[in-house]
Amino acid sequence: MSRILIIGAGGVGNVVAKKCAMHSELFTDIWIASRTLAKCDVIKKEVKELCGVDLTTARVDADNVPELVDLIQKCQPKLVINVALPYQDLTIMDACLECGVHYLDTANYEPEDTAHFEYSWQWAYQEKFREKGLMALLGCGFDPGVTNIFCAYAQKHLFDAIETIDILDCNAGDHGHPFATNFNPEINIREVTQVVRHYKDGEWVETPPILEDDCVHFSFDYPVAGPRESYLLYHEEMESLAKHIKGLKRIRFWMTFGQPYLTHLKVLENVGMTRIDEVDFEGNKIVPIRFLKALLPDPGSLGSNYTGKTVIGCVIRGDKDNKPQSKYIYNICDHTEAFGEVQSQAVSYTTGVPAMIGAMMMVTGTWSGAGVFNVEQLDPDPFMEQLNKNGLPWQITDFTGQLPE
Amino acid sequence: MSRILIIGAGGVGNVVAKKCAMHSELFTDIWIASRTLAKCDVIKKEVKELCGVDLTTARVDADNVPELVDLIQKCQPKLVINVALPYQDLTIMDACLECGVHYLDTANYEPEDTAHFEYSWQWAYQEKFREKGLMALLGCGFDPGVTNIFCAYAQKHLFDAIETIDILDCNAGDHGHPFATNFNPEINIREVTQVVRHYKDGEWVETPPILEDDCVHFSFDYPVAGPRESYLLYHEEMESLAKHIKGLKRIRFWMTFGQPYLTHLKVLENVGMTRIDEVDFEGNKIVPIRFLKALLPDPGSLGSNYTGKTVIGCVIRGDKDNKPQSKYIYNICDHTEAFGEVQSQAVSYTTGVPAMIGAMMMVTGTWSGAGVFNVEQLDPDPFMEQLNKNGLPWQITDFTGQLPE
Repeated sequence: MSRILIIGAGGVGNVVAKKCAMHSELFTDIWIASRTLAKCDVIKKEVKELCGVDLTTARVDADNVPELVDLIQKCQPKLVINVALPYQDLTIMDACLECGVHYLDTANYEPEDTAHFEYSWQWAYQEKFREKGLMALLGCGFDPGVTNIFCAYAQKHLFDAIETIDILDCNAGDHGHPFATNFNPEINIREVTQVVRHYKDGEWVETPPILEDDCVHFSFDYPVAGPRESYLLYHEEMESLAKHIKGLKRIRFWMTFGQPYLTHLKVLENVGMTRIDEVDFEGNKIVPIRFLKALLPDPGSLGSNYTGKTVIGCVIRGDKDNKPQSKYIYNICDHTEAFGEVQSQAVSYTTGVPAMIGAMMMVTGTWSGAGVFNVEQLDPDPFMEQLNKNGLPWQITDFTGQLPE
Repeated sequence: MSRILIIGAGGVGNVVAKKCAMHSELFTDIWIASRTLAKCDVIKKEVKELCGVDLTTARVDADNVPELVDLIQKCQPKLVINVALPYQDLTIMDACLECGVHYLDTANYEPEDTAHFEYSWQWAYQEKFREKGLMALLGCGFDPGVTNIFCAYAQKHLFDAIETIDILDCNAGDHGHPFATNFNPEINIREVTQVVRHYKDGEWVETPPILEDDCVHFSFDYPVAGPRESYLLYHEEMESLAKHIKGLKRIRFWMTFGQPYLTHLKVLENVGMTRIDEVDFEGNKIVPIRFLKALLPDPGSLGSNYTGKTVIGCVIRGDKDNKPQSKYIYNICDHTEAFGEVQSQAVSYTTGVPAMIGAMMMVTGTWSGAGVFNVEQLDPDPFMEQLNKNGLPWQITDFTGQLPE
């Protein structure tokens, strides 16, 4: 039997719990813990109705290592699936090390007081996990996660050498709100307001943030969704792919944004509502972006009226048999179908399903190793097979379109 | 000698204090009080440098009647000039009644928990002031205030009968910030997000708020400023003018807004930042619009880089000698010149100067009476004369333009 502990009961935690419960032959005992026990209990009830499986719920403050250790020792899981906040990656890794259990997450660590996305903090755990014979699997959501696996698959099967990768993330959905974010607003807004970087010829090139007039964008013609304005953005998987895809000359990440979303974000930035520092207010210290989060719709609540699709994939260029070729590997996920299956919109769905598959790889021993791993370092084939079986089918086409040079 | 007590040390309080100090032959002893003593002390220092006059400063919580009474008894002024928050009109009126001193304000009372602008609360003090032989002068800023006096002047000198009044308020200034309000953001935003009303044939007609697509607006060609999109808005002086201008069939109020201002406000409304109710946040009760106010530039700080002009006036139509005629009475005020004179932008300037003139009318006995008065009930001539002498010159022209019917 494999007991797992899911930490985090937001939109992604909901998907992970339900998808794991659908594989109760593998995940024979599922625990879910969060700062707010009531959120776990809602998921427990829905999982029981959906799959007839009984979860165990618990309360935990994921910022607090001793509390995490107590919980993990009580639960004795084979693996901790971390779908809490990115600020909490290191405390959860510390607790896993102390308790001798494997670790998986979907987003890299980010310090709470600076919007600074990079793997260095987590890669620094390499020796600690190796010494204990434990595996830490980093960034096993969709992007990072599936996009990395698409690249690993391309490297293994489609190319002799990869030259460039362009990851293209399109959410062509409509949630019906004037402004809402598809995952934790605090994390989302920190991500999209930062300085943009992409990797070229061994260096990181900086370009203006997406709210600036001179930011880099172009219209990409997505399958099903059609042409959508796509903005150059920094995204964490570029850091590990630049390291792990041999001979890579350039990697860029593009994300679609609608003009209303950008207008809202620009205004919120103008008035200071996206600030992550503390502001003195009526005797309290208030972080504006946290207060904004409290006002915006809960991303978990968006699903019920969400229509449209996400289209996320990689355009990869390189050589095969001494000939240049371009391939496009992508997944299309439908918001309404995702909600019908697990009561969650596609952005949470596309993150939660890969986390479950990663856990599947780890508890079955399909993926194993001691140390800290990014997903592209492991065999993509069994993972790619499970994507097709678990609601995230992928397609590969020759890419004949244009990308900015 | 006339001792006066100014309550409120914001942008308008600053102008009132300086303009009064320029008339130290009339206002022989000037006190200024506010919740924040430091703001009074800054004004005191500037007044000393500007006019060589020594103010007396004091701290007071204007929500607290006993505190106000203590202060007024200590100060023994002839008149209290209230330029604090509109929520505080009634407590200050109560304290004036208790202490037997006259009262003047520039904006009508508004309850803190609902955006509801009307004179009924203050008009209800009629008997109390009458019985004590005291005068309460309401709404003696620019609009309300000077706009009412323009109407009274028109009634007295220019028309046999007034049929319609259109008040047109244009701020063609540029403060250089992506978004800021020209006076207290809390009051400003409450005012402009409310349902719009105008008076027609004895009834109040409702139209959509200015942020709705179907709100009422047109382009008016302002003197100097040129054509500007002007939005139908509810403004408090319409209520008293509809009562006091005999035979009036219609009164409307229009205010200019730039598209960036409207876009910012719409976004802030969309995300809930203009809410005036309490939100639970991290164990505290936070009123979003108050937190927004804490983030936005202090209106008092806008002056130093403010350029351009305000153009505020009334288009009045009616009959004279059995012939229809249209007159336009207006003032043009320059932000940079206002700042040069009293370190304040024109929006505070155009409110503060009339408050000083109203006080002048009262302490000299030019205007007198027992009870609650709106300015249009008093003789406009001496006030109009002082406008020309104190930085707010007015002009009257025949109006030949078009207004929406």
